[in-house]
Amino acid sequence: MTEKTATSALGADIPGSRDKPLFTPGPLTTSATVKQAMLRDLGSRDFVFMETVRDIRGRLVALAQAEGKGYETVIMQGSGTFGIEACIATFTPPGGKWLCAINGAYGKRFAAIANALGISTVEAVFPENRRVDPGAVAQALQDNPDVTGVATVHCETTSGIMNPVEEIGALAHAHGKRYFVDAMSSFGAVPLDVPGAHIDYLVSSANKCIEGVPGFSFAIVRKEALLECRGWARSVCLDLLAQWEGLEKTGQFRFTPPTHALLAFHQALKELDAEGGVPGRAARYRANHDTLVAGMRAMGFREFLDPGDQGCIITSFYYPEHPAFDFDTFYKLLNDNNCVIYPGKVGTADCFRIGSIGRLFPPDFEALLGAIRRALTAMGVTLKEGS
Amino acid sequence: MTEKTATSALGADIPGSRDKPLFTPGPLTTSATVKQAMLRDLGSRDFVFMETVRDIRGRLVALAQAEGKGYETVIMQGSGTFGIEACIATFTPPGGKWLCAINGAYGKRFAAIANALGISTVEAVFPENRRVDPGAVAQALQDNPDVTGVATVHCETTSGIMNPVEEIGALAHAHGKRYFVDAMSSFGAVPLDVPGAHIDYLVSSANKCIEGVPGFSFAIVRKEALLECRGWARSVCLDLLAQWEGLEKTGQFRFTPPTHALLAFHQALKELDAEGGVPGRAARYRANHDTLVAGMRAMGFREFLDPGDQGCIITSFYYPEHPAFDFDTFYKLLNDNNCVIYPGKVGTADCFRIGSIGRLFPPDFEALLGAIRRALTAMGVTLKEGS
Repeated sequence: MTEKTATSALGADIPGSRDKPLFTPGPLTTSATVKQAMLRDLGSRDFVFMETVRDIRGRLVALAQAEGKGYETVIMQGSGTFGIEACIATFTPPGGKWLCAINGAYGKRFAAIANALGISTVEAVFPENRRVDPGAVAQALQDNPDVTGVATVHCETTSGIMNPVEEIGALAHAHGKRYFVDAMSSFGAVPLDVPGAHIDYLVSSANKCIEGVPGFSFAIVRKEALLECRGWARSVCLDLLAQWEGLEKTGQFRFTPPTHALLAFHQALKELDAEGGVPGRAARYRANHDTLVAGMRAMGFREFLDPGDQGCIITSFYYPEHPAFDFDTFYKLLNDNNCVIYPGKVGTADCFRIGSIGRLFPPDFEALLGAIRRALTAMGVTLKEGS
Repeated sequence: MTEKTATSALGADIPGSRDKPLFTPGPLTTSATVKQAMLRDLGSRDFVFMETVRDIRGRLVALAQAEGKGYETVIMQGSGTFGIEACIATFTPPGGKWLCAINGAYGKRFAAIANALGISTVEAVFPENRRVDPGAVAQALQDNPDVTGVATVHCETTSGIMNPVEEIGALAHAHGKRYFVDAMSSFGAVPLDVPGAHIDYLVSSANKCIEGVPGFSFAIVRKEALLECRGWARSVCLDLLAQWEGLEKTGQFRFTPPTHALLAFHQALKELDAEGGVPGRAARYRANHDTLVAGMRAMGFREFLDPGDQGCIITSFYYPEHPAFDFDTFYKLLNDNNCVIYPGKVGTADCFRIGSIGRLFPPDFEALLGAIRRALTAMGVTLKEGS
């Protein structure tokens, strides 16, 4: 462990933890108290547990700015992608067709899952370093009147780009289409008026900006859009209507829930509240991101995205244009220096990614910058504007 | 907390825990050390994590007595039922048909999931207090030559009955059919030679007899039967072949795994080993069950099953034939006395169920018996052979 990490906010938050801070899109570093909330065994039909689930569902509707506006939270076991597939499997009417507005791997994945389930899609594809263009979406809607729903990604984890989900929602609404938003890596850290954006179905995951542990995803769904889908589900487990009905009728899950992950998530929601809710969390992630970008620029790194399109969740940097740079070596050197960055690269560009989310603070990013500097030195990489 | 519980093995195992022991089929009471294994945040692509997953997969094959016999473990996010649906969705060939040997809710569920996926079934149905009859299965196989697979449940949680999975497997094998066993509530506590029983696909869950926390299921699959199913999957998430290929190719999950639940499970497997493996655990559960049954009989309760058909996992007792007995009151009185039993009743009979599994020891069952005695007294229920 480097000296910097030892004195970082992270070090203070998890005394004695030997785990490396995770500068990734998840699973993330979580607080000690979130993890400690898992030191219990509650029955899945226990009153305390059912009350916890009820409170979680209400808090998520509130985070979506949807209280009293006819929205429901449905929790689904499994990872975020299980929630995505559940939405597609539950909410696509027979013969339905999705217009997928795509500028990265997660937009593509939505279309691929729909196609695997035998559901038609039309794809409006944009470069990975460009936002989805609402004008092109409007054109696609005009060209494809048989489309029943529009799907896009809020923060595309492929690059970290923020898509204009409000504008796309207004278009979907104007054309009378259902609207799906994958808010996996943004929900809880980017203010979003879900009813105002005309979102019918939003999906996110326990182990992203709410800072829980992995084990389930959740859908925030307009109740009318939920109730209309009876008989459409293409799966038993991944049926969000049946899941909602079970939770409403008995307070229980149809199938065993990840009780410990839900207890952790409840604690994480309370900690989000204590941090000032979505704006408070957004401010910390912005500070993390700003610390990172300032330091990376000072070393000579360049970002993949225009700053105006860039969220505070994930930042993509071009590989340095230096013959001695090798990403695998770089990754390993950082890992040896106690810093875990995202191991994959952006789809088409020679970039690597660093996450600003999870229980991390600017001092953790100072430590990461120090580790990056040492890694470059070790590789013999010097950059034009190197510090 | 009652005096008895305070001095029980459970109390010793979890110092300071205020949680009620769970005499249920799961989620179960787990050891403190299993839960403490979750006090870490590992990246899902971290070497230590991937090595943990690799070790888990190998240990499960060994528990199935299938080492070196061409079997593979595939872990699936979600509850046990997600693993069941994944098996059906992945392993049923186009036009395939299952013969379902059913004597309870979980056998029925298999058929219901298959039907929901548009897959045909033939059902051989037996009373809930009778084992599946291999003779009737043989007849059904002769009557339905278009069947491609046979499915049954090892320990049917509905009643706790043990089905003759070896005999049924021999029949499936002799008829050239694939063979699925739902070993949800038995795997790890009932010795089973999976290759010897001609099992192609076995499913169990993290939070049953291995004594982990809920969050995933696992399938132990004959590799040849796994590889033949390319192109059959009816889901992206619940595709066991794709999941296996991801784990084999990169050591990683395709979609975010429940890292904490997997760390807990790894610890649970080590504790199973320390207890003497499957025979050791079976002995403790048998001691729990024997303590329970002796005490219940002494109070005048009668078991639903013949002792010869009864496993040591779950025991069903008839409601007392006394006008003052009310199950909801009984359940609540036990709950107030720190004992959580299974809240549901057996499908067709007026019975309640008590689980013998999880991190519980005979003294915990002595405490439960005391609570049951007090509950009967409080309700004014006197039984014929009451102590």
